[in-house]
Amino acid sequence: MKAAVVGASGYVGGELLRLLLRHPRVESLQAVSARAAGEPVARVHPNLRKSTALAFDPPEALRPSDVLFAAVPHGESAPRMAEWMASARRVIDLGADFRLRAADRYPEYYGFEHPRPELLAGAVYGLPELHRAALASAPVVAGPGCMAAASILALAPLARAGVIDPEHVVVDTKTGSSASGAEPGPAGAHAERSGAMRLYSPAGHRHTAEIEQETGCRVAMSCHGVEAVRGVLATCHAYVRAPVTEKELWRIYRAAYADEPFVRLVHEASGVHRVPEPKILSGTNYCDIGFAADPHAGRVVAVAALDNLGKGAAGNAVQCWNAAEGFPETLGLEFPGLHPI
Amino acid sequence: MKAAVVGASGYVGGELLRLLLRHPRVESLQAVSARAAGEPVARVHPNLRKSTALAFDPPEALRPSDVLFAAVPHGESAPRMAEWMASARRVIDLGADFRLRAADRYPEYYGFEHPRPELLAGAVYGLPELHRAALASAPVVAGPGCMAAASILALAPLARAGVIDPEHVVVDTKTGSSASGAEPGPAGAHAERSGAMRLYSPAGHRHTAEIEQETGCRVAMSCHGVEAVRGVLATCHAYVRAPVTEKELWRIYRAAYADEPFVRLVHEASGVHRVPEPKILSGTNYCDIGFAADPHAGRVVAVAALDNLGKGAAGNAVQCWNAAEGFPETLGLEFPGLHPI
Amino acid sequence: MKAAVVGASGYVGGELLRLLLRHPRVESLQAVSARAAGEPVARVHPNLRKSTALAFDPPEALRPSDVLFAAVPHGESAPRMAEWMASARRVIDLGADFRLRAADRYPEYYGFEHPRPELLAGAVYGLPELHRAALASAPVVAGPGCMAAASILALAPLARAGVIDPEHVVVDTKTGSSASGAEPGPAGAHAERSGAMRLYSPAGHRHTAEIEQETGCRVAMSCHGVEAVRGVLATCHAYVRAPVTEKELWRIYRAAYADEPFVRLVHEASGVHRVPEPKILSGTNYCDIGFAADPHAGRVVAVAALDNLGKGAAGNAVQCWNAAEGFPETLGLEFPGLHPI
Amino acid sequence: MKAAVVGASGYVGGELLRLLLRHPRVESLQAVSARAAGEPVARVHPNLRKSTALAFDPPEALRPSDVLFAAVPHGESAPRMAEWMASARRVIDLGADFRLRAADRYPEYYGFEHPRPELLAGAVYGLPELHRAALASAPVVAGPGCMAAASILALAPLARAGVIDPEHVVVDTKTGSSASGAEPGPAGAHAERSGAMRLYSPAGHRHTAEIEQETGCRVAMSCHGVEAVRGVLATCHAYVRAPVTEKELWRIYRAAYADEPFVRLVHEASGVHRVPEPKILSGTNYCDIGFAADPHAGRVVAVAALDNLGKGAAGNAVQCWNAAEGFPETLGLEFPGLHPI
Repeated sequence: MKAAVVGASGYVGGELLRLLLRHPRVESLQAVSARAAGEPVARVHPNLRKSTALAFDPPEALRPSDVLFAAVPHGESAPRMAEWMASARRVIDLGADFRLRAADRYPEYYGFEHPRPELLAGAVYGLPELHRAALASAPVVAGPGCMAAASILALAPLARAGVIDPEHVVVDTKTGSSASGAEPGPAGAHAERSGAMRLYSPAGHRHTAEIEQETGCRVAMSCHGVEAVRGVLATCHAYVRAPVTEKELWRIYRAAYADEPFVRLVHEASGVHRVPEPKILSGTNYCDIGFAADPHAGRVVAVAALDNLGKGAAGNAVQCWNAAEGFPETLGLEFPGLHPI
Repeated sequence: MKAAVVGASGYVGGELLRLLLRHPRVESLQAVSARAAGEPVARVHPNLRKSTALAFDPPEALRPSDVLFAAVPHGESAPRMAEWMASARRVIDLGADFRLRAADRYPEYYGFEHPRPELLAGAVYGLPELHRAALASAPVVAGPGCMAAASILALAPLARAGVIDPEHVVVDTKTGSSASGAEPGPAGAHAERSGAMRLYSPAGHRHTAEIEQETGCRVAMSCHGVEAVRGVLATCHAYVRAPVTEKELWRIYRAAYADEPFVRLVHEASGVHRVPEPKILSGTNYCDIGFAADPHAGRVVAVAALDNLGKGAAGNAVQCWNAAEGFPETLGLEFPGLHPI
Repeated sequence: MKAAVVGASGYVGGELLRLLLRHPRVESLQAVSARAAGEPVARVHPNLRKSTALAFDPPEALRPSDVLFAAVPHGESAPRMAEWMASARRVIDLGADFRLRAADRYPEYYGFEHPRPELLAGAVYGLPELHRAALASAPVVAGPGCMAAASILALAPLARAGVIDPEHVVVDTKTGSSASGAEPGPAGAHAERSGAMRLYSPAGHRHTAEIEQETGCRVAMSCHGVEAVRGVLATCHAYVRAPVTEKELWRIYRAAYADEPFVRLVHEASGVHRVPEPKILSGTNYCDIGFAADPHAGRVVAVAALDNLGKGAAGNAVQCWNAAEGFPETLGLEFPGLHPI
Repeated sequence: MKAAVVGASGYVGGELLRLLLRHPRVESLQAVSARAAGEPVARVHPNLRKSTALAFDPPEALRPSDVLFAAVPHGESAPRMAEWMASARRVIDLGADFRLRAADRYPEYYGFEHPRPELLAGAVYGLPELHRAALASAPVVAGPGCMAAASILALAPLARAGVIDPEHVVVDTKTGSSASGAEPGPAGAHAERSGAMRLYSPAGHRHTAEIEQETGCRVAMSCHGVEAVRGVLATCHAYVRAPVTEKELWRIYRAAYADEPFVRLVHEASGVHRVPEPKILSGTNYCDIGFAADPHAGRVVAVAALDNLGKGAAGNAVQCWNAAEGFPETLGLEFPGLHPI
């Protein structure tokens, strides 16, 4: 099949290229970037040296494709979607422009009036674990935000099982520096970010809207930037309606994810890696989920770890494509991750 | 005055020595360590090279002093307290053995029956911001846990003001690697800790008991180890009884801390350092506090940052001593911290 | 084919398992570890969760195999080699016991008398780039040290071309924390290693002997531990016999490595990644090589980067096996690495 | 006395402010910055919150002073020096414009023709350990480059003692991210710099000229950027004229530095901190020096560690001022550093 990546010079774009270059069903691949047009891909993404001779094409040279992955800044997908839908049989958008079904949340969370609200109903929120069946026929798939993906995968089973109080859910996330993209400002400078524990968004984070849409909970979200490059950890503190045991939690999560190829339940009694840890997920498409009951406080702690460029962006997008096309869902996503790293 | 540090070869002990060596009121200083007895202090604490010719004495060589600082593992202070009280006019214990007033919480949180429960009533919880007046006459001062100190300083003003629901307070802490001491196990190895976001205690953390004692709230606490060496960040998510504005929060925190020499309110509109950030506090005795209202979720976010060896341990202990003796409270604690670091 | 990994619970052992589990020619795999016998592999190597149900076998349960990879401490291979050679058609030893052809260098560099000196002549130094032809018939392949591999690949072409003064070669290496293995001592604790630039071996490093053996140069080697987990950078400063231009250097390195699948020459005029950088090599089998002429000082700078667990250990061992068996040399080693990471 | 800092909003400028704010002989302090004019100092340098109410003045508001410290980019001091000399009794320039006595090296190493070559002869190279006597009467003091300061302090005693071959000296430096200043480009982004071992200057580094000027050696210099914020480690590999023992090295270094308040010889037989390590020097004015003989290669290894903003810039500048004025040389520079950090 023919695949195109628009916005291919950023971190997410580079990760898409890395995955698609080795994907067994990709016969031809186009890398599109306004900023890097004309440059060899491997100069911008040095990990791809000797893996590809591809160069970036300018946006106006976009060719027809079976699938188009878009990794452009928020607000830039919606105006171009009609063009992309004409060019590609399927569009997987990794930005925020088609994640929210309610058009009126865009002004609130993203600061712009949605230019194509009529397209929102047709877009499917791209988490195969929640919306697998709808992916095949969706003309537009909207890949989740990285922190939203982690939080939703942690919370959805609890919310669906009805064990948590949907009005009192705290989501405290931690994320690495690559989440702010390949062109970070002064706050992303190494001397400022090294060893940081930075509460960069105490309240009102944009991913709140997605998490609420997908879980039905009212979410109190705060986001921190910490020293790491690719990981996201979402610690979800959910007050429970009634006491819940760890055995019940095991049952709930197993029921939700036993057959999922990319969700692993991590809850060990001993060792260094008893709980999900994003660092060992770098480069993978896994979301590792852990949990604990806290009877003292009347709370469940659910925690999810993923690679913000993997299951939080590019890997998940490829999984969505696999699912939509009926390929084996793990195709091209078999890398198990490194330890130590 | 004569000062002694027992447990002087650990990280907290080293920080006490660093501070006391330059404290204008310390005339003689003894460093006691069973493990390092006989060794020069500067071999164990290489930052003190050329600053001191002191060597460690064994515990049996402890000399009478005006103040004894104890930095020994939990459970080791209580059995030795009588001896220390006989040896020193004032004991400042940096472990947990005298932090909790209720003896029955020791088996629950620390796994041991308290051997000297009759001493608990006389011990003062060593946060000058909360218990300054009581310090002068206290024979034993119990320095808080590092994560407890941060959480309490963030939450106490809100709790006292009555704006938060005391039953629904989530404390999500992040801490650097020095918190596990100078002899960490395999989880503290660099290859495992580098870039980590490790939920090492989802529930039941020992500091919960202190925070509840000092704030009157029921606390849902989870602790994470992240990549950093000395910092603690406590993000406190407190549901409110009724909507509260940022202006009210300003008023509450200013009323609590306007005259405190070591609490800074950090809440800026722009720049890299809009909120408290532990990394710039390394080596200082500051606790930086920030806050935000979240009307959407009915929550206040209160965040406190400190150096776990500074305001979270040694620096705070020296501040307690200064307060107890009636010295200027900032004596020997003037280092303002580094940026960048 | 049947493969066995002895010493499978360490970092190198885990990397071997990761690679062999997905190697298309491995039909059965045994993981042997005295320390972890009985434990599931994925508990020790958490990246392999959901990838394998394998458990560690004790050494006495070693089964016959086509290839045995040994990742045990220096000095432990030689006494067991006879047993391994009886058990496996081919042994690839990743320790130092068979790297040096001259038995008398073992007391000097490793502090032990070699117990089986008669086996040294039959062992092949496992760098395919230098000894490819000899690998097929070698009963024992001795994988290089990680810093030696980098230094030799950087220096060998210059030494063979006769452009450098073999008596004045300085090798200044930098390495990440995983090089000291899964059980590091206090120097490997995060609080000590974070941000470190530690000259841990100013002179006399063991890898000196290998580099001298393979390049014919007298080597002045110093090794540093820096903050990173998996990388090695070897900066080689070689005084030249006569002035040499960058054009000549290009020609020398291209002649040596143009057809090598895992050596990349990195020498770009602009961008962030103009020279070899180990971090983007994590998990790969690449050795990236760069160079510069320094006419001012009469020197060539040759620099090589690799992953100390990849091309510096496990990846290179698999490449040796591929070469020895006549498999495509890149089999199972196709992972291109991550950026950023 | 009255002090002024020009270029006060950068990292070096901030460190100067931190030191001068607490310097006992500074009665008034002016912070000058074009970029940050009007802003409170503590917004740019958040470590100074609660330490100062100072705001930045624009350059045109520069007031007369006893000493003016200039921390502006290379090439910007020379054109302004006449103005500064009219305004201040003494100018300490932390840039490169007055470091080299030979005007003709500026085009070669800095790419500009020196606009005021007649001033070069009057400037003193600001390393008190080498030029203490000349400082008092110097109208202009030129603070060394951070990597030059380390390399010169390591090499000068060997060069003066005549034990090393001055034609074969390799200087391999490693430096943290703050060395590239408060406004780094894409290479300084955390995701790129984290865990890096980057040979950013294989040959031709500007500091080469200073090191050669001060040591009389021909220097083969290469510089690396590694993961750390403030440190510099200079590993100097010097071939010897004749074999030299460690005892002789001890004698040479003791003779050079026994009375120096800020040079420490670090050469221990055991422990984690056997050699100089920059991380424990953050915030201090120490230069720690170690050494080893390498009879095998006919080499001495001399290594120096310092804080690139401390002894490598601001701290050293204050020390120069102290020495020039006849103050105790350690005045305002007593901070001993932190461990761990």
